[in-house]
Amino acid sequence: MNTKISDKVINRLTLYHCILSDYINENIEFISSKQISQMLHIDDSQVRKDISLLNNSGKCRVGYIVKELKDSIEKTLGFNKTKKALIVGAGNLGTAIANYGNFTDYGLQILAIFDNDKQKIGKIINGIEIQDIYSLPAAAYKNEIDIAILTVPAQYAQSTADFLVDSHIKYIWNFAPKVLSVPDNVQVWNENLMGNLLQFTYNI
Amino acid sequence: MNTKISDKVINRLTLYHCILSDYINENIEFISSKQISQMLHIDDSQVRKDISLLNNSGKCRVGYIVKELKDSIEKTLGFNKTKKALIVGAGNLGTAIANYGNFTDYGLQILAIFDNDKQKIGKIINGIEIQDIYSLPAAAYKNEIDIAILTVPAQYAQSTADFLVDSHIKYIWNFAPKVLSVPDNVQVWNENLMGNLLQFTYNI
Repeated sequence: MNTKISDKVINRLTLYHCILSDYINENIEFISSKQISQMLHIDDSQVRKDISLLNNSGKCRVGYIVKELKDSIEKTLGFNKTKKALIVGAGNLGTAIANYGNFTDYGLQILAIFDNDKQKIGKIINGIEIQDIYSLPAAAYKNEIDIAILTVPAQYAQSTADFLVDSHIKYIWNFAPKVLSVPDNVQVWNENLMGNLLQFTYNI
Repeated sequence: MNTKISDKVINRLTLYHCILSDYINENIEFISSKQISQMLHIDDSQVRKDISLLNNSGKCRVGYIVKELKDSIEKTLGFNKTKKALIVGAGNLGTAIANYGNFTDYGLQILAIFDNDKQKIGKIINGIEIQDIYSLPAAAYKNEIDIAILTVPAQYAQSTADFLVDSHIKYIWNFAPKVLSVPDNVQVWNENLMGNLLQFTYNI
């Protein structure tokens, strides 16, 4: 892609992708912008504008060809460019993410889960083994890991982030409700659940 | 608040709030916009602009008074206006959310967790009892529930959403990777984890 696509558009395109996957499962060949807009309770014109950013939208007389539109979203958002990740923290949240089936459909490959709890080490979650946190640096290096998904409790988040930085991890997807201090060459994405909720509930 | 605050600003304000909570725990009285901006790797001017939207920012000679700035964010974003929620689905994700300690700090009160798994019903998560899904309509009515947090697997998401709509739930915070079809008087907020991740990894 040459043009930068905004965060809001990326978010909507993944929702369109979700709808298109359902249509494919139901063997439906065509979809209109109006059908998409009604499912998401947004404007039809917004859907058409978002889709116009794609290289080949599969536009046809009756709307869009489901398979072509889906492929185009995947290419544009780079689903076919696999990113390798590991999960740090095998608690409920880490386990939920490891079980969140469709990450691989979006190009996210989770290679390992790490924890320091001896009771958990060796167990398998969704085909992925829980490993000792102290084997993380070697595993990250060997597997050329891009992203660490941080799901430890808030009070351990900073020390674990320091450990990830020392292990040469460059991207941290942080689920802990804690602002992390990291060097400039490390990027943190805060999965700020409260912020997300407040965007929703602000007007309730 | 009279002015509408954008989603991005709400998101940043909750991160500032997170930093301010840490400062209070460490008994630090003052904070500068520069300190906040450095922790989040954003522009100092952005922080000052966001804070200028608050009614009383606690601005002083050396920056901001931590406690006043924190209070002001809480008032502006309505943390003191409690919203009542219930969790639907007591799997790993539902459990993780029930254990996510600081929701109450932000005005979200989780009153009950529901599941249809007889093995889970009656167990306690973080002080909240798992109840039979069939008792949901009565519990939602009795407790004047605002929000249902939907954490069931994708294949059960639509049928569960239908059940929530029939139970007169008006706001659904949907964690399932599935676009839900609901009537116009029900609002769905899709916690689109893949969309969030792609905003982050789009340029990796």
